[in-house]
Amino acid sequence: MTGAHGPGTSAATPDPARRGTSRRRFLGGAAIGAAGLAAGAAAGVGLASAEAAPPVTAGQLAAQREAQTVPFYGTRQAGITTPQQERLMFAALDVTSTDVQDVQRLLGRWAALAARFTAGRPVSDSPGNPDAPPFDTGEAMDSGPYSLTITVGFGASLFDDRFGLADRRPAALAPLGTIPGDAVMKPAITGGDLCIQACADDPQVVFHAIRNMVRAARGTAVLRWSQLGFGRASATGAGQTTPRNLFGFRDGTNNIHADDTGGLDQHVWVSGSDQRWMDDGSYLVARKIRMEIESWDTDDLADQQRIFGRRKDTGAPLTGGTEFTPIDFHRTGADGVPVIDPHSHVRLASPEANGGVRLLRRGYNYTDGQDPDTGKLAAGLFFLSYQRDPHAQFKVLQTRLGKSDLMNEYIAHIGGGVWACPPGVRQAGDWFGRSLFD
Amino acid sequence: MTGAHGPGTSAATPDPARRGTSRRRFLGGAAIGAAGLAAGAAAGVGLASAEAAPPVTAGQLAAQREAQTVPFYGTRQAGITTPQQERLMFAALDVTSTDVQDVQRLLGRWAALAARFTAGRPVSDSPGNPDAPPFDTGEAMDSGPYSLTITVGFGASLFDDRFGLADRRPAALAPLGTIPGDAVMKPAITGGDLCIQACADDPQVVFHAIRNMVRAARGTAVLRWSQLGFGRASATGAGQTTPRNLFGFRDGTNNIHADDTGGLDQHVWVSGSDQRWMDDGSYLVARKIRMEIESWDTDDLADQQRIFGRRKDTGAPLTGGTEFTPIDFHRTGADGVPVIDPHSHVRLASPEANGGVRLLRRGYNYTDGQDPDTGKLAAGLFFLSYQRDPHAQFKVLQTRLGKSDLMNEYIAHIGGGVWACPPGVRQAGDWFGRSLFD
Repeated sequence: MTGAHGPGTSAATPDPARRGTSRRRFLGGAAIGAAGLAAGAAAGVGLASAEAAPPVTAGQLAAQREAQTVPFYGTRQAGITTPQQERLMFAALDVTSTDVQDVQRLLGRWAALAARFTAGRPVSDSPGNPDAPPFDTGEAMDSGPYSLTITVGFGASLFDDRFGLADRRPAALAPLGTIPGDAVMKPAITGGDLCIQACADDPQVVFHAIRNMVRAARGTAVLRWSQLGFGRASATGAGQTTPRNLFGFRDGTNNIHADDTGGLDQHVWVSGSDQRWMDDGSYLVARKIRMEIESWDTDDLADQQRIFGRRKDTGAPLTGGTEFTPIDFHRTGADGVPVIDPHSHVRLASPEANGGVRLLRRGYNYTDGQDPDTGKLAAGLFFLSYQRDPHAQFKVLQTRLGKSDLMNEYIAHIGGGVWACPPGVRQAGDWFGRSLFD
Repeated sequence: MTGAHGPGTSAATPDPARRGTSRRRFLGGAAIGAAGLAAGAAAGVGLASAEAAPPVTAGQLAAQREAQTVPFYGTRQAGITTPQQERLMFAALDVTSTDVQDVQRLLGRWAALAARFTAGRPVSDSPGNPDAPPFDTGEAMDSGPYSLTITVGFGASLFDDRFGLADRRPAALAPLGTIPGDAVMKPAITGGDLCIQACADDPQVVFHAIRNMVRAARGTAVLRWSQLGFGRASATGAGQTTPRNLFGFRDGTNNIHADDTGGLDQHVWVSGSDQRWMDDGSYLVARKIRMEIESWDTDDLADQQRIFGRRKDTGAPLTGGTEFTPIDFHRTGADGVPVIDPHSHVRLASPEANGGVRLLRRGYNYTDGQDPDTGKLAAGLFFLSYQRDPHAQFKVLQTRLGKSDLMNEYIAHIGGGVWACPPGVRQAGDWFGRSLFD
């Protein structure tokens, strides 16, 4: 793996001289002086991984988690294989300018902002002239970066006839065509010329990043839709436990992990495709999946487990063992019926049922309050997945799932999109997706 | 203060015998054995306060924060003076039954559930019959309580002619009448016969609590509206720093703190009112305050600071000093003009300008994605306040603010309500608000 954004990340070193202008503030005045502390905890992996580290005080630990940084510059974008952070804000924007240079300038501004925000710094070290609007909106002024990553992607619509980019559109960005169950996707929360995925271990930090990047787009692009994710619904780090989705199940047990370099090269990172500017990039497929949780909650436990193919309590497959025990799809009960229902979620989504196809999942649980029509909780999974080719991966899986997944009775794909996430911003002065315009 | 829910809270002691059925799981297998550790950190006060504690490992600390409990049973409800947790889910429900006994049974079920959830336990220790729906929805199955509190309130509409409670309605619950600026409150996100405020340091834990309590209401009450708060916007604990609102300012610097027993008795806890069942209760006034953040972001720094009456960076009053320096409202500049604008937010909301009136603020920043009409970020402050009498406190303050607060150009009160939060549930078998039905 050549990217800089594996599971190993570094804790920022406090620089007292910067404190006046930095967003980074150390709780209770705790200073992180010992390199051993910094090495002890891997960002986003959860605190459990630092158990072997030398003892630290509570104040130091809180400051350390807050100060944790994920490097922004690199061959590949962060926020894809980075051990998944706890909170998300996602935004899709439409370009309103018709000048490709405006788009380039925006991608440059965004890169400069992302470099600062991910280091825990505001839009500018200067608050600005008192007689002008502040450079930074300020709500994260006292906060460290909390492992913030900012990942940018390009939708298929960016390659229409507005910007002269039609011949740079990768084949992988061609429309996915009809997928069973997609008929109810709402245009207002689907697609967008550009997307930004901001992830961090603090929700105000991700909100601040999206807000200021949308603000920086004024005159060039406008917010089309956005989504807050309140809790991690996938594990991408080797030390992370599999979280539970809003059906109460551990979901994504067999996700590709950040330390599986071979799996990432095979399934996630683009190389040698028809558009070389996407080398070291990845394709994001997002789906806002509404869960009918009130209906689900009336289903019996045995049926819920049949639908998933796993036990609800332990996450173990119904064929036995623990959560990570390989699933025996061929096993039948005394009655000759397969123990794992052939239409269970775990089987239909498995590599075994899909010619080895896998995705890197990076989703979040969400709620938007209640549905105005039914009064039910409007909640579900904001599914985010990264892959080399949505046609060969997401579409294959979702066609199978959309057709016959037992879970379909309880879910609906109501929005989302596909974006080409270009390679990383390599250094200061570069833009997101510079290779696209070379 | 006679309630059990002051700033001092206790860390739950792990009980290995309960692990099979408890939601509480210890990250990385860390056990919290030392009483010294439990005493070292106060729940919700932030980790900084534990700096003087003996060193702990990162894994122990994470487990400790997750395992932290706030006692549920007590003279007064928790979640009012409890040091404010990081995340909120709030729900307003309407009673659909016309049988007062159904309401009583619901309040009993809720008390039993709240006792379990705040101890990190699921709806039942048994998953239930495989052929029946699981007792618990499961999404918090592996999680500790994270300082969860559950606070229940009764809206004025509960005292209409349906349940024979009309003569038990406190004068304090009478309609607030016309308050300047309230014209745009939307009925769909205003009011409700009952409310539940769930606060914890983890969002999935608060979601789980609300979801399962709404589920337990089936047949008796339905969800009317709900709100997720992503970040703490007030400080109520003595050791907590004042967080920033989405205008980027520290707001509520002079909030009543949990250690100010005299202030709480004077301003927050009901005693000796016309309805004795409300003794040791408090009135919640909630307001969903939409902030026009894009407009705010175009205002210059000097004007933003004039509107607040404080500096944006430090939170210090414009008359100088640090955040907690008393404000000199009488000071004038060389030009004879008051340094703090008489219509600034800090002056109009001050006890000095309102005959000593104060509130306990307990709000959260929120975002609902984007406004469908304008494409702007739909975000703001979910203002929660507790007081002895909304007429003598919130109404007085908001009448002044609604009339002439310079901030009004940038905010709108779009929803909310008033609820009478009864005294605490004293012991197992009691209900929320049992004194109301005695």
